[in-house]
Formats: sequence, structure tokens, C-alpha cells
Amino acid sequence: MTKWVYTFGDVAEAEKHAGSWDGVRSLLGGKGANLGEMTRIDVPVPPGFTVSTEACNAYLAEGNSFPAGLWDQELEAMKVTEELTGKKFGDAANPLLVSCRSGAVFSMPGMMDTVLNIGLNDEVAESMVAMTNDARFVYDAYRRLVHMFGSVVLNIDDEKFEQPLDSYKEEKAYKLDTEMTADDWKALVETYKAVIQKEMGFPFPEDPYKQLKLATEAVFKSWNGKRAIDYRNAADIAHDLGTAVNIQTMVFGNMDNSGTGVAFTRNPSTGENAVWGEYLMNAQGEDVVAGTRNADDVAEMVNDLPEAYADFMDVCAKLEKHYREMQDVEFTIENGKLWMLQTRDGKRTAKAAVTVAVDMANEGLITKEEAVLRVKPDQVDTLLHPQFVDAAKQAANEAGKMFATGVNASPGASVGRVYFDADTAEAKAKEEGQDVIMVRPFTKPDDVHGMLAAKGILTSEGGATSHAAVVARQFGIPCVVGASTVRIDSEKLQFTSNGVTVSEGDWISVDGTTGEVFLGEIESVAPSLEEQTDLLTLLSWADEIAATEGVRSAKAEGYPTKGLQVWANADYPEDARRARSYGAQGIGLCRTEHMFFEPERLPIVQQMILAGDDVKVRQESLDKLLPYQRADFDGLFEAMSGYPVIIRLIDPPLHEFMPDERELLEDVIGARIKGEEVTEKEALLADIESLHESNPMMGLRGVRLSVMMPEIVSMQVRAIFEAAADVKLRGFEPHPEVMIPLTGHVNELHFIQPKLEEIAADVMKTKGVEFTYKFGTMIEIPRAGLTADEVAGTAEFFSFGTNDLTQFTFGYSRDDAERNFLVKYVEDGILPVNPFQTIDRPGVGQLMDIAVSKGRAARPTLECGICGEHGGDPSSIDWCHQIGLNYVSCSPFRVPIARLAAGHAALEHRA
Amino acid sequence: MTKWVYTFGDVAEAEKHAGSWDGVRSLLGGKGANLGEMTRIDVPVPPGFTVSTEACNAYLAEGNSFPAGLWDQELEAMKVTEELTGKKFGDAANPLLVSCRSGAVFSMPGMMDTVLNIGLNDEVAESMVAMTNDARFVYDAYRRLVHMFGSVVLNIDDEKFEQPLDSYKEEKAYKLDTEMTADDWKALVETYKAVIQKEMGFPFPEDPYKQLKLATEAVFKSWNGKRAIDYRNAADIAHDLGTAVNIQTMVFGNMDNSGTGVAFTRNPSTGENAVWGEYLMNAQGEDVVAGTRNADDVAEMVNDLPEAYADFMDVCAKLEKHYREMQDVEFTIENGKLWMLQTRDGKRTAKAAVTVAVDMANEGLITKEEAVLRVKPDQVDTLLHPQFVDAAKQAANEAGKMFATGVNASPGASVGRVYFDADTAEAKAKEEGQDVIMVRPFTKPDDVHGMLAAKGILTSEGGATSHAAVVARQFGIPCVVGASTVRIDSEKLQFTSNGVTVSEGDWISVDGTTGEVFLGEIESVAPSLEEQTDLLTLLSWADEIAATEGVRSAKAEGYPTKGLQVWANADYPEDARRARSYGAQGIGLCRTEHMFFEPERLPIVQQMILAGDDVKVRQESLDKLLPYQRADFDGLFEAMSGYPVIIRLIDPPLHEFMPDERELLEDVIGARIKGEEVTEKEALLADIESLHESNPMMGLRGVRLSVMMPEIVSMQVRAIFEAAADVKLRGFEPHPEVMIPLTGHVNELHFIQPKLEEIAADVMKTKGVEFTYKFGTMIEIPRAGLTADEVAGTAEFFSFGTNDLTQFTFGYSRDDAERNFLVKYVEDGILPVNPFQTIDRPGVGQLMDIAVSKGRAARPTLECGICGEHGGDPSSIDWCHQIGLNYVSCSPFRVPIARLAAGHAALEHRA
Repeated sequence: MTKWVYTFGDVAEAEKHAGSWDGVRSLLGGKGANLGEMTRIDVPVPPGFTVSTEACNAYLAEGNSFPAGLWDQELEAMKVTEELTGKKFGDAANPLLVSCRSGAVFSMPGMMDTVLNIGLNDEVAESMVAMTNDARFVYDAYRRLVHMFGSVVLNIDDEKFEQPLDSYKEEKAYKLDTEMTADDWKALVETYKAVIQKEMGFPFPEDPYKQLKLATEAVFKSWNGKRAIDYRNAADIAHDLGTAVNIQTMVFGNMDNSGTGVAFTRNPSTGENAVWGEYLMNAQGEDVVAGTRNADDVAEMVNDLPEAYADFMDVCAKLEKHYREMQDVEFTIENGKLWMLQTRDGKRTAKAAVTVAVDMANEGLITKEEAVLRVKPDQVDTLLHPQFVDAAKQAANEAGKMFATGVNASPGASVGRVYFDADTAEAKAKEEGQDVIMVRPFTKPDDVHGMLAAKGILTSEGGATSHAAVVARQFGIPCVVGASTVRIDSEKLQFTSNGVTVSEGDWISVDGTTGEVFLGEIESVAPSLEEQTDLLTLLSWADEIAATEGVRSAKAEGYPTKGLQVWANADYPEDARRARSYGAQGIGLCRTEHMFFEPERLPIVQQMILAGDDVKVRQESLDKLLPYQRADFDGLFEAMSGYPVIIRLIDPPLHEFMPDERELLEDVIGARIKGEEVTEKEALLADIESLHESNPMMGLRGVRLSVMMPEIVSMQVRAIFEAAADVKLRGFEPHPEVMIPLTGHVNELHFIQPKLEEIAADVMKTKGVEFTYKFGTMIEIPRAGLTADEVAGTAEFFSFGTNDLTQFTFGYSRDDAERNFLVKYVEDGILPVNPFQTIDRPGVGQLMDIAVSKGRAARPTLECGICGEHGGDPSSIDWCHQIGLNYVSCSPFRVPIARLAAGHAALEHRA
Repeated sequence: MTKWVYTFGDVAEAEKHAGSWDGVRSLLGGKGANLGEMTRIDVPVPPGFTVSTEACNAYLAEGNSFPAGLWDQELEAMKVTEELTGKKFGDAANPLLVSCRSGAVFSMPGMMDTVLNIGLNDEVAESMVAMTNDARFVYDAYRRLVHMFGSVVLNIDDEKFEQPLDSYKEEKAYKLDTEMTADDWKALVETYKAVIQKEMGFPFPEDPYKQLKLATEAVFKSWNGKRAIDYRNAADIAHDLGTAVNIQTMVFGNMDNSGTGVAFTRNPSTGENAVWGEYLMNAQGEDVVAGTRNADDVAEMVNDLPEAYADFMDVCAKLEKHYREMQDVEFTIENGKLWMLQTRDGKRTAKAAVTVAVDMANEGLITKEEAVLRVKPDQVDTLLHPQFVDAAKQAANEAGKMFATGVNASPGASVGRVYFDADTAEAKAKEEGQDVIMVRPFTKPDDVHGMLAAKGILTSEGGATSHAAVVARQFGIPCVVGASTVRIDSEKLQFTSNGVTVSEGDWISVDGTTGEVFLGEIESVAPSLEEQTDLLTLLSWADEIAATEGVRSAKAEGYPTKGLQVWANADYPEDARRARSYGAQGIGLCRTEHMFFEPERLPIVQQMILAGDDVKVRQESLDKLLPYQRADFDGLFEAMSGYPVIIRLIDPPLHEFMPDERELLEDVIGARIKGEEVTEKEALLADIESLHESNPMMGLRGVRLSVMMPEIVSMQVRAIFEAAADVKLRGFEPHPEVMIPLTGHVNELHFIQPKLEEIAADVMKTKGVEFTYKFGTMIEIPRAGLTADEVAGTAEFFSFGTNDLTQFTFGYSRDDAERNFLVKYVEDGILPVNPFQTIDRPGVGQLMDIAVSKGRAARPTLECGICGEHGGDPSSIDWCHQIGLNYVSCSPFRVPIARLAAGHAALEHRA
């Protein structure tokens, strides 16, 4: 005979049957398993039993009928419960009341919740009144039973029970339920019974066993209720798990010397190691939850119920020790005796998660590995960026201040005044000290000075890897992009969105974490990493763990074959210093072209571009740029002394450095019509038009530019090696790695790399110093990944540029995709994630895997890393660990998150 | 002792030593091998011997000294030659004269060519005069020896010998060499000897053996001459092959009853099976080549030398039968006796190649397989398109008429008057009957009516897969694109290139086969396929062969697992009929969007696009378009009854259907400045701007458009199935295959395909007919290839869109790449071929291979084909065969080429 029913004392037997603790949870549900477990470790739990999920499945499989033996086993278990409590179910003389609750493995809306006070009927009620001398308590309990039985078990509309109570109170001119007397409740019991008779055509069952059986069945049936099925479909929960049913002795906190409460074994906001919660004397659990009375701090219980308090503290410590995790508990004290009704892992803030994990590891309760796994990388994000104060944001929402949403491109909260162009934004910030939010349709490299001066950025176009998004993340500026309802009128200096008009200088608040934009100022708080010692501890543990695992197929002797490191993308010495302070072990991407946009340099760059075939003019311009570039790299190498610094040679198409074509065109057309002289502008326009490309992302950029015009990268490499030599001579340890972007065919490297290596050798010889360096390439063209064995014959390192690699592998324009279809694709589930935020493993990820395998087969010492935006995304980092990269490189602000994610990945895939 | 020297009679021994006939060619060089082979089959060859390439290599390896035994073996071979001829080398009484020629495996400029008459000296000459009674003949031969020995063996500047002859003739007032008397030649011999003495410091060697040894050495050394090395480097020929030296008895055609000639065993222009060539009585070979005397048709030899003629005809037949290939021969008749001096495979025109191959197969001389392999697919191209008459083109070149070059985008010759816009081009062609060449910076879909009316197309921008190129190939219109020197001034209605200005209405000639553009009219000839019965025969053989091989990993029972077919890309019934007549077995790509550009439809299409979110207006527009589309498909299905027709659903971004943004912008700005009312145009401009994309090739197009706006493809599928049903009801056999473009993720198919299948089922039910059909997808996004197993779970066929697949795999914009860097990449060898013309096997090809493997693993009956421009490229077709495609689909005009290429591929990779 199958065992369908387990008393709480049978948990060992359940574990034997199920084979594991997870099995017990599947068999008895989460709640039942924990009640059994608490019983096993001698925590005081009101006796009772659990009807297993197997019984539920059997019931449903047999067309809603009890499987053989189930009811007999319930009756048997009830006898055990009666013995443990010394009471008797349905016995008027010494009645046992029970609750009935569903308990699936996952808690699930739409399933039957709770029926209390099962076992009461007219006879038992009368008897209890005599025993307790508290008629009001008894009839209050009785009316609760009839109400819950009617609504929850019999599925009668709740309103049918609420309405008579309201009418009754109105009639009596009561305002609160507490004004109801024993007689009032007793009258209501009769009313409720009449409701059941009317709605169902049969009376409320006075027989306690009939009550129990119907309640059990109601729980079973609720598993297949529409809402439960919908929920499981949405949450991807299997439909064959079934639910357990928990039948438990009622204990009453709403008596003398009694109370009830909910608590966390540690502070869920701060993580402080002190029990934290609320309790109410003379109350039932629902009173605490409903908040009808003001609850007291659980610490004050020491005065009201000192013995129970002491027991409770012991139980909390015992539960934590047993579960090795902070617990969220419910308890009732009945006549001074503590009863635990529930325990489960407690939810907590990010800050508390870190502190609890580190404390528990330091207390020896859990291992460092477990501590690392207890904190999700995304939680760390909120600890690094300013965040809006919850209440303030909620208030703004309720006041209807939210007027636009977009892609949450760079996390954090920012508040400032709106300005529409980079120059004004910079001037207002620098000269007037204003907090500025820069609002643009989209940004270009020559907007960067304004962006850097801004507190926040909002664009109406672009996606997660648009220029605005990338730069904002790079510099930790909160940013929302692609807010498509925003219409900017740059002449009127205002924008509108969803009927709201915002003018230059108006205050707005931008939540880069969620993508929401609000009118006015919302209060925010700004954390600092340095002060978060627990977080620093946790990250150092993550580093230790990450260093022990990973890096596949790097086989050469003496070559590091363990440890996914976290590097940072940094263009300036200041970024590099921040990266170091956040724990980065290298620079994975220094973009050199940003350096070309500084105001004193841009005219020289433009002169160089307009030189056309005039190599002399171009060389003159480059000679002028060389000292600037050298100075840029000098500071970077000094800040990163002893660590590798990967510098990417010029990547963007040249037209990005030129004035805006459209503006110029309008000027020229206008001037022509007015008959004005425009020769110079016309010539400039013609030059810019000659640089025009139909699909610039697939155009003349990266190494293609270097093949057509090798002088620019020659200057850059000279600057890199001169700077490194100077830094070395000053006693630092530079490790430059020169990265050639956009390689698609190894012959591109064959063409340019030897020329550059010659320059490197020449500079070292001239300066009389030696230092280690590498030449390598980005893998961002699908073909480079497919032919990685050939490419690795020349390249000494690979850096996956997953922004472009995703762009080309999907054929999605990074500039347009989100706005045009990608957001809808993700919403509709056509894509599971935005592939510009999280690596698409089946496609882009597979290609990366192929590239690493082929690349390392050709060159076992090949250094492989990632410098695309995915380098800071935890799921992507997990993939990078799996395919054996040496490092991930991300914005300095995401380095802590990435370190934690790297630790997780190492633990997750530990052999 | 190594055998260094082989007499012509030793060829069997050489073959034994070398192991194969190819080995003999390596050992003895092409010329030596053939002289030996002719000797073996008893063709009369003047006796002689070959010094092997091994001897050459040994000589060079030993620092330019004869390896042991070589000279002795030469002397020995000379003795054999003396015995065969009954003459004696260096013997004044009965002198043997020989020639000495180099003979490498590959003929090679820069190597020593020929020294004739070796063995002559003063004594021998005098004796020969006595014997022949022809002093002029003897001293002419003698002066030739001294001249050639000096210039060729001793490397004295040829001018040093030419100049004294010119002076002598001037002195004597001779105009021609024929005026020179015996004494004149004798005097010149002395002069030449003095030249040698002066230049070299030693005299001309009178000793015949010394002559022979020096000549042998000169041949050896010439292998390492600078020009020979440069040539080998350029032609990728190994440097260690060495050259052979052929020493052969001199025979003299410049005597009585003698003559000399060159001939082909069949007509090399037409392929006619009749010996074709020239001969001269009383002449030496060089006289025929020099053309100083008018040669006679070789057929006339029957009168002059009837016996020798009969012998010659027999020898020609024998050689053809032996070599199983048309031969190019040189011969000399000395005193009525025929001697063969050389035979080799004859070069021929494309037309002759076809006829010779088919005739020889029909004669049983070669197999059909060999016949198919004898014709290169590219040769067929010239048989299908108009071609400029060679002489006329050469004259134009010499007259400096060639004024621009570009990418040879669509082959053929075209001549016409220049017009700069589609409307004018169409009007001039249709209303005035002019031959029109349309000249544009680039073309767009709304230029197609002008292109179709034009004889030829010239663009200044774009590459091999630009719109102009694709459309031109599709319709067989000669086209040159990306002629970057062409600057069009659309206001002045003229263009300039390399200093030439061409105005509207001027005549130009465009060679789409070579990419050249000429001023004025060049004569051309236009072939017709139907009349080329030999070609039709050859293609039918190619079809038979292709049907026996290929199609990898298609494993399902009853599924065709052999035979790469050739299908065509055709949008209109007329194209489909041409495709069938050219032998296409299906339509691999019908582009539906061209249909949207017809003048009466475009306004409806624009109305639909501008409907925005107004689904009702959009549906109304689509309802209007439905009958048009249905009519389009109706004709196509009827023309292709019994064959599959793959129809691609709408692919291009919507802005392609809208008016030009730039023009509209200029209008709006102009009107604003003038204060005119522009509300309507401004609104239209705003609408068009809202469709603007930064990288439209990676934008909202293909299936993405269908996901965002399913109504358009729903209309298209309804039109397809209604047309198919109607055609079926009329008694034809439609086999529609619906192709969804630009799929990147299988979920895109999950989203749209079921909706479309429902429409298909609905139409068939309503119309009450059934026919087979498929739903499939293009593979043109790298991710689709990488996840082909997932995609094939839903798609019933794959069609590789290799234009886009190449674009994304390389990250090269099809619109810009050629102009910006790709042409230079190919020129500089960074890329071996233009990947938009020939499939890049290591990258794009690998991805195709992956996709076929994964796709067929998931669905063994998966139909795989290619519909990109590569479908008509022979090298790409070879790859398609290797990876197991079911068909290649190309422009109807390339179908014959593709059929031949498919046959070649089958033979090439026959297991």
C-alpha cells in the first residue's frame, strides 16, 4: 500500500522514500517539508500531518477520487495528532481544531490557500465556550471557518460573505470588527450557513471529518484551477508536480498570555545579526499581516512573555544553524507556549544579502563558496550606483510623474536640468555648477564632452549598444536610451512625451536601472564601494574562487590555465585608476578614437582626413597628433603598471570625425537659394558626402581603414611604444597589447601587423628599453571566428567584440534594431533576451566557442577575452567561463559585478 | 650511373623511369616528351635526343658544371642520331646539323629559346656548298647560327647583329633579305664572328661539339635567368622543376621540293573537323611565323607536294587519335619527305571548343565525360551574350576610345545613347526606338523600368551585388558598375571620366564582360542559344552527369539523393519561359517586391506603408494589391507547370518604396526659405525620415517586417495559393514553395509560418483543390546557419542567400565595399577573390557546410539550394556540389554555364 500521508514526525521516513531532501520537498511541498524538518529537530511545531503530492496526483489521475488507502491514512494520522495533543478531533468534550493548507514545491498564486478552525461545529462550539469561557473567541473562530470553508473550499464568491458582515455592522452602527460581540458573531455564523445552503444547495457540513475531506479535495482540485495552470505556464513550472496538503493543529494567539508574530533571524534590510520582526499580544497571525493593529518590535516580547521569548531566540538560532541560512518565521504563543508555524529562507536587500553571507561565512555557518553564491551579481549593481529612495520614487509614480520609458542602458539614478546639446550641457555644468541631464535624439562621439559633464543622459533613439549607452556605462552615468515617445524640438528647446512638455532647464529624474523617466526631482542615495567592507570581502573570495577554475584548452607549458580574470574598458588614466580600485586586473579595451575628439585635436584630425591622397598633408597632421596620443597612453601605462593594457587601434569610419552632414546640407541648400557664397561649405559637404556609406557599420572602418591608410595606425603604434618606453624608463612596468579591430581575413593582419611590429622594434631600439608586448585582434566579424585557426597564426590574442559580433551574426544594426523591432521581439518571446545585453549562446556564443577552440588549436598560448558590452553581464560571463576565456573586460563600474559573476561561474561549473 | 640523356626513341625507358606520362613530361619537358611520343608511334620526327630536367637541376646544383656522365651520354646519343640519319656531326663530308631548344614542363618567357644549325663551321659550310650546290642556302644557315649563338647562347645584345645587317643592306641598297646573295651572307658571317670576338674576347667556336656544349649550358643557365624567375614567381611555378634541352636533327624546308607549315588538326575558330593551317614552299618555319611571305592554305599542299600531303593528313589523324585531342602541329618537308617538328594541344575559341568536344565524343574518340570537361563554363558565357567584334574593339582601343573601367557586373556588349534617368531612358527607347545606355550613380528599385528598356547600364558606384548588377544579370543586360572615375552632373546632363565628357544622347559602348567603357559605337555580334546545337548537346550530357553525383546527407527513403540541379531566378513569366528554354529545372527565387514598383501599384504600396498603425487603411491597400500579385504568380506557375517555384516573401526595407528623401528635403528647405506652403511635403518627409535606418541592410526587412506587420505577407501568401489553385484548376501542375527571408532565429518562423500555412490550407479548401507546396527559409544571416538544426525543425527547405550571407559573414556592406576597399583588397591579394562573385570557402562556404549538415541532421529531406549571385559562378557551383546542395539557382542567362559547371563538379568529385 502506497504511503500517502506523513505525520510531521514521519519526515525521516519521507526522506527515505524520496531519497533526498529535495525529494522530500517534492513529496511534501515546501511548507510540509519544513514543518516535518522542524519537528525532527525538536522545534515546537503544532502536531499534524501532510498529504503528499503523490496523493494529489493520484486523486487527479483517478478522475477526482481518493486513491485507495488515502482517507484511512488521513484518519490514522489524525489519531497520531490526537495522541500528541491529548485532544480529539470532533469531540465536543476535548476538541481538536486543525488548519488545512496547500503546499506545493513552488508557492503559486491561484491555489487554495488556507482554511482555519476545521473541526468546529455547533456542538463543539458550545462545548468550547464552556471550556474557554470566551464565547466571542469561539464564535469568531467559527464564523471564520464557515466563511473560509464557503469561499475557499466551496468556491462561493467572497463578496457573499463580506456583504452580510458589512450590513450587520451598518445595522448595529459598528465601525470595526472588534465591536462585534459573541452574539453578533454567532448570528453571523447562522447567516453564513444560510449563504452556503443557498449557493450550494446543501448545508455547511457539521461533521468535522466531512469538513476535512472536502478541504483536502479542494486543495487537490485547486492544482488544476485556471489561474494555477496559467501561472505555471507563465513561470515554466511543470504541471505534473501536484500539491501537498498540510493538516495542522490550531493554536491560538488571541487568548490571554498569548500572541503571534513574524520575524527574520537577521535584519533583512541591513543584514545585522539580530532577530528582527513584529509581534502582537492576544492576536492571530492575520492581524499582524493585516496591520489593523500596530505591531510591536519582536524584541519587546522579552517583557511580555519572557520565557517564550527566550525559547523563540533559541529556536531562531537553532533554525539558522540547521538551515544555514537566514530564516523568515511565523510563530504563535498560546498560553505562554511557543509554537512555530512556518520557517523559510528570508528575502533581503542586496546590502543585507552581502552582509549576511559574509557574516555567516565568518561565523563558520557556511563556506566562502556558499557565501559567494548567496549574492546574485545583479544585486551588487544596486550597491554601486545612486538609487532613488524607494518611497520617493513610489510617491512620484503615484503622482503620475513618470512620463517616458526606454531601454535601461546604464544603471543608477540621476536628477538634473534638461539641456539639448553638448556645449550647453557642459557650460551649464562647469560654469554654473548645475546638475545637467543631456537629452538628445542620439549621441555621437563629439557629444562626449557634454555627456561627461552630465549627471544623466536621455535619448529618444538607439539601443543597448548605441553610442550613448556604451559611453554612459563606460563612465557610470545613468542613462536611458530609445525612449521612443520622446519628441525633441531642438528649435523650441523642449521635448514632449505622452502629453508632457519639458523645456530647457526643467528638472527631470532619470532611472537608468529601470529605464523610467520622471518629471521633477526624486530623492536618491549614493553608495561608495570603499565603505562597503563586507562587499569587498565577498569580492575577494569570488576572486580566489575564480582563480581556481576555467580557461579551457590553453595547453602550453608555463601558460596560465586557470582563472577567468576581470579586466576593465578604460580610455583615460582616471578610468584606469578607478578600474584598479574596483579590482580590475588589466585594461581589456582602450579606445583610441575618443582621444581624437578633444577640441584642440579634432581640427587636426579633420585636416588629416581631408588630405585625401595628399600623403604629405596627412603625415603632417599625424605628426601633430602623435604627442597627444603619446601623452594619453603614458598616463594609462603608469596607472596600470604591472598589468596588461590592450589598446585598440582606430576603429570608427572617418566620417564620424566630420561635421554633421545634414546640417551642412541644409546650410548649403539655404545659401544657394538665397544666392549666398557657399563655396567653402559646398566643398566640405562634397568631401563629407564622399565619405558617406549606405551601411557604415559594415564599411570602411577598423583594419580596413588601416589597409587603405596605414599612416594613422603607424602613428598610433609609435605613440603607444614611445609612451611605454618612457614609462618603463621612469621605473614602471608597462605591458602594452596592440589590438587590431574588425579583422575578417588573416591576410589583413599579414598586411598591417609586420609594419607595426617593425615600428615597435624601432622605438624600443631607439629608446634603449625592452618590455613585453603583444599584437592581437578583435574577433567581431563572423568570418574571423569561423577561420580563427588561420587568424591565430598571426594574432597573439583574441578579444571578442561581441557588440559587433552580435550585430553581424544576427544581421541586426546596433543603431536601429531595438527601436525598430528588437524590443518587440523580446517582449513577444521571439528572442529570449536582448542579444546586445546577454550573449546569445546558441548563435553568437557558439561562434565564440568555435573561435576559441580553433584559435587555441593553432596557438595554445592564445590569450582570449571579451571587451564587448557583454563583459559585464553575469549570464554572459558564465558563458565566457564555459568557453575558456582568460578574462572579461567591462566598464570599471561593472567590475565588482563581473568579479562576483566570475566566482559564480567557477562554482557553477566546478568539475 | 644516372641516365641524363634520352634519345627520342628512349621514351618507353623514360616512362619506366618516371612512372607515368606526367612523369615523362616532368623529366623531358613538354616538347621533348611529345617528340619522344611521336617517335614511339612512328610519326616521322627528325632524330635527336633530350637532356633531362634532372640533368639541368644537377648542373645548377653543382655550381654550373656538368654532372658526371652527362657529356658522355650526349656524345652517345649523338652517335645514335648519326646512325639514324646516316650523317655525322662535325663531319665535313656528310655533316649533321642540329637545333638546340629549351623545353620545360610549362612554356616560360625568359628562357633560352632556339639555336638552329649547330654543327656548321667554315669547313662544313664549304663542304655543304659543294654537296647542295646552294651556297646562298648554306651561308644563310651559317649566318643564322652565328647570330643566334651570339645573341641566345652568349647573351650579346641582338642589336649588335641586326645593325651590321641593316648597314650592309643599306650599303647595297637592298630592301629585303631575299636580295642578299650567297656572298653577302658569307661576308656577314665574318662580320658576325668579329662581333663575337669583340664582345666576348673569344672567337665563335668552330668546333661543333663546343657549340653543342655551350648551347646546352646556355639552356640550363636560362632557367635561373631573372625574367624566368620573375615569371615563375608571378605564375606560381615551382623553382625546382628545371628545364630539359632538346637536340634535334635539322631539316630544311627552304630547298627544292620542300616546304614548312603550321596547322591545327581541326578548325580552331569553328571547330570544323578539317585540318586547318598554312604552309610555305621553299621556306623555313620562321618565315611562316614572321609573315614576310604570304602563306598558303595547307589544303593547297595537295597540289605542290601530293605525297607529303597525304602523309601529313595521315599523321594529323594519327596524332588526334593518339592524343585524343585537337593538335597544333609544326612540320617541314625536306626533299618531299615529311618531318613533324612539334605537336601540342591546340588552343581554340569557345565555339570551337564546344564543337570539337561534341564531335570527338560522337566520333568515339573521347567519352561524353571528357567532352564535358573539355569546355570551361566561363567559355560558354561568350556564346550567350553579344560580344564586340575583336578587331573592332582592338581598333577602338588603339584609337584611345576606352575612357572608363569598372566592375564587370553583367556580361555582354552593348551600344547605345546615354541617358541619365529611368523615365527618359524608357521614353527614348520605347517612343523613339533608340538604343539606350542608362548612366546613373547607382540604381534603385524604381529605376527598373528604365533599366529594362536599356541596352546597357553604367554606374559610378556599387559593386558586384549592387542593385544595378543584380537586376542587370537577372535580365541579361550588359552592365558595368562602380566606374569610379565617372562623375555625373545630372543638371548639365553629362558625365566626365578621365578627361572625356559625354553628354546626353552621345553614343557609348559598354563591355559588361570586361568592365570597359568606350566612346562611340563598336560593332558586336549576338549569338542565339537555340541555334547552337553542339552546345545544347554538350549541356544535355552535363545534365546527365550531374544527375549521377552529389547531394550529401539527404537520407530519407524515396528522397532524391543525387544530382545538383540548375534552377533560375525569375520574377516574371517571360523570365521563367526563358529559364525553361535554357534548361532550368525550377525557379529558385522569385522576388515579389519588384512587382510592387509597377507604376499603377507603387502609389498603393506607399499608401499601405504610410498607414502606420491604421490597420484598416493598410488592409484596404493590401486588398487592392492582392489581384495584381495573384496575376503575377498565375503566369509564373503556368510557365513552370510541373516544376518547383520558390517565391520569396517581401524582403526590402519599406523606405525603398518611398520617394527619394534627399530630393524631398531640398524641396522642403527651399520652400521654407521662400515662405511657400509645404505642409504636405513636410509630412511626407517626416514619414520617410521615420523609416530612416543607419544601416538599412541590417534593419527592418525580411521576416522582421513580417513579424511587425504580418498583413503584407498574409496578402502575398493568399495571392500565391489562389494563383496556384487557379492554375491547377486549368490543368497545370503548380508546385509553390514559399520562402521566408532573413530568418535569424527559428522563433521568427514559429511566429509567422503557422499563420501562413493556415492561409494556404484555407485557400485550398475554399477553391477545392490540392497541390504540393513547401514553406522554407533563406539562410542569409550567419546565426541561421549556425543554428540550422533549430531552423530546419520548422523550415522545409533552405535557400542560401549568399549575397547577404557574405555581407554579414564578412561585415562588408554590399552597397559600399567594392568602391571603398574591396577592389583594392583583391588587387593586393588580401582577398584571393571578390567574395561577392565567388564563394569564400573558408568562411562563408564553411558556414554553408555547417548549415547543410545541421539542417539535414534535423530534417533528412531538407531541400537545400542557393539563390544568391554565386549560383551562376562555376567555382561556387563546385562548392555547392561538394556541400551537397540540391540545386543552384541563377539568372536565366547563366543557366547554361551553371549546367556545365554542375557537370564539371560531378566529374571532379566523382568518388
